[in-house]
Amino acid sequence: MANHVSFRLIRGGLAARLGDLSTPHGTVATPAFMPVGTQAAMKGVHWPDVRASGAEIVLANTYHLMLRPGAESIAALGGLHRFMHWDLPILTDSGGFQVMSLSALRQVEETGVTFRSHVDGAIVALTPERAIEIQHMLGSDIAMQLDECLKLPAADAEIERAMQLSLRWAVRCKRAWDGLAPRGALFGIVQGGDDARLRQASAQGLVDIGFDGYAVGGLAVGEPQAVMLATLAETTPALPAEQPRYLMGVGTPDDILGAVARGIDMFDCVLPTRNGRHGLAYTRFGAINLRNARHAHDPRPLDAQSACPAAREYSRAYLHHLVKVGEMTGGMLLSMINLHYYQDLMRGMRAAIAGDQFAEFCAAVRLGWSRGDIEECAG
Amino acid sequence: MANHVSFRLIRGGLAARLGDLSTPHGTVATPAFMPVGTQAAMKGVHWPDVRASGAEIVLANTYHLMLRPGAESIAALGGLHRFMHWDLPILTDSGGFQVMSLSALRQVEETGVTFRSHVDGAIVALTPERAIEIQHMLGSDIAMQLDECLKLPAADAEIERAMQLSLRWAVRCKRAWDGLAPRGALFGIVQGGDDARLRQASAQGLVDIGFDGYAVGGLAVGEPQAVMLATLAETTPALPAEQPRYLMGVGTPDDILGAVARGIDMFDCVLPTRNGRHGLAYTRFGAINLRNARHAHDPRPLDAQSACPAAREYSRAYLHHLVKVGEMTGGMLLSMINLHYYQDLMRGMRAAIAGDQFAEFCAAVRLGWSRGDIEECAG
Repeated sequence: MANHVSFRLIRGGLAARLGDLSTPHGTVATPAFMPVGTQAAMKGVHWPDVRASGAEIVLANTYHLMLRPGAESIAALGGLHRFMHWDLPILTDSGGFQVMSLSALRQVEETGVTFRSHVDGAIVALTPERAIEIQHMLGSDIAMQLDECLKLPAADAEIERAMQLSLRWAVRCKRAWDGLAPRGALFGIVQGGDDARLRQASAQGLVDIGFDGYAVGGLAVGEPQAVMLATLAETTPALPAEQPRYLMGVGTPDDILGAVARGIDMFDCVLPTRNGRHGLAYTRFGAINLRNARHAHDPRPLDAQSACPAAREYSRAYLHHLVKVGEMTGGMLLSMINLHYYQDLMRGMRAAIAGDQFAEFCAAVRLGWSRGDIEECAG
Repeated sequence: MANHVSFRLIRGGLAARLGDLSTPHGTVATPAFMPVGTQAAMKGVHWPDVRASGAEIVLANTYHLMLRPGAESIAALGGLHRFMHWDLPILTDSGGFQVMSLSALRQVEETGVTFRSHVDGAIVALTPERAIEIQHMLGSDIAMQLDECLKLPAADAEIERAMQLSLRWAVRCKRAWDGLAPRGALFGIVQGGDDARLRQASAQGLVDIGFDGYAVGGLAVGEPQAVMLATLAETTPALPAEQPRYLMGVGTPDDILGAVARGIDMFDCVLPTRNGRHGLAYTRFGAINLRNARHAHDPRPLDAQSACPAAREYSRAYLHHLVKVGEMTGGMLLSMINLHYYQDLMRGMRAAIAGDQFAEFCAAVRLGWSRGDIEECAG
């Protein structure tokens, strides 16, 4: 465990857990949801509003930042916290996932990955050592190892090859990280597709190396939710109970309930902001598509009891209008509303776990979603 | 004068004036700048941030709102203030200017204007009576007469025809407005292009009808700034000193200084938000183009002494990055910064007029703009 990062498990074993993750920039209550500020910006949401939603940690993307403005530029400006004026914890990914999803041309070799930048077409090399160096220059509170992340479905042999390569990269990342005497933490990433045996081997390999926390990568990459949850249930028992577990890139509110039930502590996802920009609101009454004409004359707010002013103060008719005519503030307000809802959900889960009511909480939340239309009509 | 609107001239005659405009939704200190919320939204800026910038009144566009969501819809939802959750004064234009600038196909006749909607191609008729009815349904604090606004340069005969038509429409608007017993005010609009004789005839015609305030329209439509200011200087003496004067659609900070010096009390313009979205910041040091590569490594804020948190807290390097990579928050922050700067400028002018220092104030402001680069380097 790095000096300045520690995890305290307050409650729970393999099932829903409650914890505190201390980092150089503050403590994060878990289960935690990390909004995604890919390019050192939260799309459509000002940082003070991200904070006001209850977020205690955000994620930034190494891949994007290494291309623009460059890790060296950010380091010269005092690091990522100062650059984007966010003084709470930041987790950075390693760039591996974006290389897979954004670069048309890429070549994975033992040394690392070479890819063509989606920005200017330049050829860029990313090794495990460079991924760590970049995250260290950014001043990350929690850095991630470089891994190779496949889309599912994939052939068994391919899944195993990528998992084994990721393990070898994990060793190199750990060595590079330790050499920098960082203040933050380094997490390993479990790979292995939907194969329980490979997942467990990956987890064991990472535990043998020894990380500050463990992420589950390579899920929510095309497989059904049931496969993702089953894979999680087979993976988390192989991870040390006393260290934080992070499910990368997940997910919908329902995904998060399911993953917390299977022992996950941390999440990140672009859904609240991306879907907000496309007119979708996440609420206690389920996901509401504001593009729908039925909202055009509806004077009710999205949720009169929300902690988010925008969810209380603006009518559905107004939000519908903004989305319909393409006003920026439509996406801005819905992104803010969604970030609030995600954090409300996490807060609710934490309180429920503390009170040994997690299953009841999930049932009540899901009932609220399923009864959405009734609630709405009665509202 | 309508019952609920009154103007108190605190200082000034033909040159820079200081006043208070009382409306059903509060009092506006003049000279005042009205940010433009065309479609019942301020592009890229949340309403609480518009308020925080110091804006005491905003403008909304009848043309856009009559098309979407429709005046009847907004009225059914409790009026425009409630619809967009803004409880300070709102001025609505009459739609005439947008018919000219946005509709490819339009036909101006004595009865009114018929145009093809830029949204769905529908044929829409707008008469003086309908323009008033719509603004009344919106619940406007200050409504505008329907006028015909030409682009300059235009032929003399055409300018005179449009001016005379606008005067006849003014009579019909006044009659329609009085019939509705509204709580707000109705302003007439002086037309007449860059012809002093026509401007004065238009002003006299409007004064004979009798309005709560007088706008100068048909400027900033293609003519040089010097022509606009000369026309203003020939127009404002023909308007009653004890009533507010509004220069429509103007302008740059320098335009506003020049127009206040010629006796104008109110302004509206999309420049602070539109140019903000395009990477331009208005500051005490002049207009700064954040796209410029010279900002890429600049750790200084735009203005450490600004009342706007975004202008103080984010580095030029960060704003440059956001603009460069196309993050929404770049335009959002610069729009907010620009709205603050415009309001700062208006506050400065009001204080200067109160202290009989208006000319000195203008000279100092212009010196700051011209010395921008020196100040910036010394900063």
